[in-house]
Amino acid sequence: MIRFDSDYMAGAHHEVLEALVATNMELTVGYGNDPYTAETKALIREKCGQPDADVMFLVGGTQTNATAIDGILARHEGVLAAESGHIAVHESGAIEASGHKVLTLPHYDGKVSAEDVDNYISEFYADATYQHMVAPGMLYISQPTEYGTLYSLKELEALSATCHKHNIPLYIDGARMAYGLKAEGADFTLRDIARLADVFYVGGTKCGTLFGEALVVTNRKLLANLFPLVKQHGALLAKGRLLGVQFGALFSNGLYERIGEHAVRLAVRLREAMRRAGYEVVIESPTNQQFFRLPNDVVDRLHESVSFDYWGPRGQSESVVRFVTSWASTDEDIITLEHLLG
Amino acid sequence: MIRFDSDYMAGAHHEVLEALVATNMELTVGYGNDPYTAETKALIREKCGQPDADVMFLVGGTQTNATAIDGILARHEGVLAAESGHIAVHESGAIEASGHKVLTLPHYDGKVSAEDVDNYISEFYADATYQHMVAPGMLYISQPTEYGTLYSLKELEALSATCHKHNIPLYIDGARMAYGLKAEGADFTLRDIARLADVFYVGGTKCGTLFGEALVVTNRKLLANLFPLVKQHGALLAKGRLLGVQFGALFSNGLYERIGEHAVRLAVRLREAMRRAGYEVVIESPTNQQFFRLPNDVVDRLHESVSFDYWGPRGQSESVVRFVTSWASTDEDIITLEHLLG
Amino acid sequence: MIRFDSDYMAGAHHEVLEALVATNMELTVGYGNDPYTAETKALIREKCGQPDADVMFLVGGTQTNATAIDGILARHEGVLAAESGHIAVHESGAIEASGHKVLTLPHYDGKVSAEDVDNYISEFYADATYQHMVAPGMLYISQPTEYGTLYSLKELEALSATCHKHNIPLYIDGARMAYGLKAEGADFTLRDIARLADVFYVGGTKCGTLFGEALVVTNRKLLANLFPLVKQHGALLAKGRLLGVQFGALFSNGLYERIGEHAVRLAVRLREAMRRAGYEVVIESPTNQQFFRLPNDVVDRLHESVSFDYWGPRGQSESVVRFVTSWASTDEDIITLEHLLG
Amino acid sequence: MIRFDSDYMAGAHHEVLEALVATNMELTVGYGNDPYTAETKALIREKCGQPDADVMFLVGGTQTNATAIDGILARHEGVLAAESGHIAVHESGAIEASGHKVLTLPHYDGKVSAEDVDNYISEFYADATYQHMVAPGMLYISQPTEYGTLYSLKELEALSATCHKHNIPLYIDGARMAYGLKAEGADFTLRDIARLADVFYVGGTKCGTLFGEALVVTNRKLLANLFPLVKQHGALLAKGRLLGVQFGALFSNGLYERIGEHAVRLAVRLREAMRRAGYEVVIESPTNQQFFRLPNDVVDRLHESVSFDYWGPRGQSESVVRFVTSWASTDEDIITLEHLLG
Repeated sequence: MIRFDSDYMAGAHHEVLEALVATNMELTVGYGNDPYTAETKALIREKCGQPDADVMFLVGGTQTNATAIDGILARHEGVLAAESGHIAVHESGAIEASGHKVLTLPHYDGKVSAEDVDNYISEFYADATYQHMVAPGMLYISQPTEYGTLYSLKELEALSATCHKHNIPLYIDGARMAYGLKAEGADFTLRDIARLADVFYVGGTKCGTLFGEALVVTNRKLLANLFPLVKQHGALLAKGRLLGVQFGALFSNGLYERIGEHAVRLAVRLREAMRRAGYEVVIESPTNQQFFRLPNDVVDRLHESVSFDYWGPRGQSESVVRFVTSWASTDEDIITLEHLLG
Repeated sequence: MIRFDSDYMAGAHHEVLEALVATNMELTVGYGNDPYTAETKALIREKCGQPDADVMFLVGGTQTNATAIDGILARHEGVLAAESGHIAVHESGAIEASGHKVLTLPHYDGKVSAEDVDNYISEFYADATYQHMVAPGMLYISQPTEYGTLYSLKELEALSATCHKHNIPLYIDGARMAYGLKAEGADFTLRDIARLADVFYVGGTKCGTLFGEALVVTNRKLLANLFPLVKQHGALLAKGRLLGVQFGALFSNGLYERIGEHAVRLAVRLREAMRRAGYEVVIESPTNQQFFRLPNDVVDRLHESVSFDYWGPRGQSESVVRFVTSWASTDEDIITLEHLLG
Repeated sequence: MIRFDSDYMAGAHHEVLEALVATNMELTVGYGNDPYTAETKALIREKCGQPDADVMFLVGGTQTNATAIDGILARHEGVLAAESGHIAVHESGAIEASGHKVLTLPHYDGKVSAEDVDNYISEFYADATYQHMVAPGMLYISQPTEYGTLYSLKELEALSATCHKHNIPLYIDGARMAYGLKAEGADFTLRDIARLADVFYVGGTKCGTLFGEALVVTNRKLLANLFPLVKQHGALLAKGRLLGVQFGALFSNGLYERIGEHAVRLAVRLREAMRRAGYEVVIESPTNQQFFRLPNDVVDRLHESVSFDYWGPRGQSESVVRFVTSWASTDEDIITLEHLLG
Repeated sequence: MIRFDSDYMAGAHHEVLEALVATNMELTVGYGNDPYTAETKALIREKCGQPDADVMFLVGGTQTNATAIDGILARHEGVLAAESGHIAVHESGAIEASGHKVLTLPHYDGKVSAEDVDNYISEFYADATYQHMVAPGMLYISQPTEYGTLYSLKELEALSATCHKHNIPLYIDGARMAYGLKAEGADFTLRDIARLADVFYVGGTKCGTLFGEALVVTNRKLLANLFPLVKQHGALLAKGRLLGVQFGALFSNGLYERIGEHAVRLAVRLREAMRRAGYEVVIESPTNQQFFRLPNDVVDRLHESVSFDYWGPRGQSESVVRFVTSWASTDEDIITLEHLLG
């Protein structure tokens, strides 16, 4: 069985695992107050070009989103997001559980437009009853999106400018950031992300670590008391150094870049194989998630030896499916698939 | 430097780590729906003698407490706990953040008494204004406690009987369960815990894993929808199998028992060394946490080569300190300490 | 100036006010434990044909919705509602503030369809990732709706059957119930509402009292601890008898019916005047809220001597506006308006 | 039956009621945007000597406390209060329901000391684990307290100075403010309260209105978005002018002062009668709440014709009881009681 269901099916990249094994029997203080974590935070600040940023390591994506958004918003505010956004759909109500409404915007293959954000906020305050409605207090976007698509630098700049024009912060969920930074035609850098977002996170779980997300706060007054907030959200890892060590490996020796390049290269190869086999590419995704329209008998036949996600029916006899590559995917996986598509 | 600050300073026990390394490159589905997790859940049910229990793996202790308590309580209810209990003191308000008051009881070296629980509930409902106050909806205890002490089987039975007499569930925080089960004079088993508690967790973080707690729900109607609740609390690990694999190792080949025995043996040896050196044992703890009263100059001298926790002053010239052993402590550590104590 | 902005612009109907004045200097115990409240609860149970229902008086509508919904839902559940529903739009996030997502359905002039509810729930549980999404835990509808429209008895029966087929409760927001019960062509009774809903409220604020809503719980296990829940939500009036006294007057001598008839009669007369003047009736509303499309110059001219709500532009030169009648509206108001419409 | 159970047993003072009756049939816009409310806000600002304060009218005390505290605190903060404070005991967990812990201080007949506040905060930040505990984010006191006692001006100044030294706001619950301002020996004014507190409320419910509390925010950056916060808490009255009209009457023609003087004079007279009859005054209260130690047979005998609150047993044969006077108490009530006491 070859597997393209998701990018969190294996353990950790071997360089990350080796760092964990090498430090396993060291004794350090808990909760991220250890030297490994301090060193990795400095490394991330440097990679981001943000010497004054606060960096905090959390365990998972839903947790990171819920903690940051809860800390940023005032009680009467909600968070703007694409109606396809992870926080709007797939977090079991974690944002609402901390008291905040997700205010949804239309999405274009997973992306929101600066124009829609601008209009939403302008129309909100133009409504005579706006004080009876939930105020838009921040914007959440994911880069890459849940559909594998990517904002261009120009789009990111427009979103950031629109947010700041309306005096709300921009938050970027970078769960799959590695696969975005090395996507086909990607024209933005981690420094651009850090410059344009007020708060963002760089994902580890899907990009090479066992688990973990690095939250970066460039606009520090937004999250002035991050430590107790993270603890309160149950998101503070006792053995915090495990995060420092893993992200240390991830951001050393170009590993994060290599991971991104590898998965994207395989995703492109996979897409070409599908195209050659005559199947429609449903979303133009330059990253590690690829969406195809397949006849149902092909889906059934492939499923005998390949796992991938079912996204929904298209008419009577076809379906949309998702294939995901990761740092753990191999050229052999693709060759096998090419053969099956034969 | 030898370290006795806490029991979460090292990585994982080598048998646990080896299991992670051995399975690292396997690809499995996420969120605990993998075969390793299923197998380990069955193993834990069997160890607990509870074939019908629900088992769920979470990442950390505060998270597990907050998730379970939030799911168990009705909106108008609070949780009874010792005023020294972890949820009452050291969780940054995680219980309150999910909307519930911690109702505190006096503690006796970290333990609550069944009589106090009984009286609290009886007096509560005898108060004419009780509907204006927070109703006691469950009892939280830790075994062992935050002071290293242990409830006897008889005490556990009394607490369980008192809870059920008043129709509230008993929840046991077993963050350090391994060190309790193998404590000096321990007269209870994991099956007793499972029989007497409605919900409890067996800790991994402090007892041999990198992270992780195993929540066991024997009274399943209390937490009928655990999966979305865990997800909502940001406590669902994407690579859930990491928990299944680690707890699988922990509960195989008697590892959990060996871990408990090892740390307790070293704690007893450490305590004897302190006693021989003439220092008062402040709390009679049969587990891996030991509390001593030391002259301040001894504290200062020891701190040059030993790390341990400061708990507070006693008069002008003495302090109470905590020493903690774990599976990662060594006989060499104790020998070094014995030597330093002269 | 004549006023048609809303139905909460005057104080209380004089029969209600007289009851308050008559009892003003009596001394009774607080929090609704007085004899007036007990008597009125019995009266409401009788009017509803539900001798075993729980009845509780709260102060306002948003408060009543937030309290009841918070009490009914489990932590992982959300509430289904029309995207135009009061809880989805105009409660400043009160539902989310208590931790729950509002799951929106399309609306047809303010109403949801049983078919859409059925499909939503069926598709939800058919989705492989449903445990990562917010489960539909109840249905909220308003009768009459925010658009003045009304569910027929058949529609109510279909909604109730659909809810119970899927094992979720039906909650009805009856803020304007008086104007629905006496609407043109209304084919349902208060007993139907009580029979079909699990929980509902009969509004006072918009229908003759100074303030107050009567929450009726026919399915009592859903809200077994209403008193402390209401207190916790800050919704327990100290001088609870003010609610008992007001609702006592409202449900005596046919006052509630007279209030409904009066406002509906004036609304129909107002609508006919608009029609005669050549203006389009935008929504077919049989209740006290009427929506018209007016040329902007007419809007401006009317606004010199009449107040009403602006709902939005229609093209360059027209607008949709809302006119609301109530128990406090008079035939003289309508005559004046008729005169102004020429 | 004469009644001394509480100060919220009657309706409204006749001057307040007359104002409601006089304006009953006027039509005004809702939610406190009417001219009466605007005028009364200005009046209160003037009485407080705070021309820039924000004033907001809410319905009840628990609601006002929960709303203000929720708006003031950051997510990781709790509120300091006497362990006897209303928010700590009798609000059914309303503070916790909005996510915040009540951090209790010892009380001295209902009062906290500036020294205890100072020590709490100093010791909190001196604790190495403070980031794992709930940070004290504000101080709540009640003036008068739940025990009828009163802070002197000097004590208020010390509390205010202590709070501001530690950079946390002082919040004063003035549910019974009228009875404090006119208490025996009271040496503070409403302007002192407004000068020393950052946020406070002046109670109507217990002091002459049907319901309502006037929240005054002198430190406006603490509650910059009060309107949607109040709405979100279900605390926004639709017919907001009812609050403006009532507080307008309360603060006109010296009514608030007359109410305070009247109730305190009767409380003193009542206390003297008890003293003359030989019964111990348990708490030295200069306000409208009085606490006595009575033999149980006297309690039983009095209860045949007088209602009052039972606070608890004292030994085998005596009890502590509470008698409360209000604006609605009469000299005739006291004369009857004097007669009964013999």
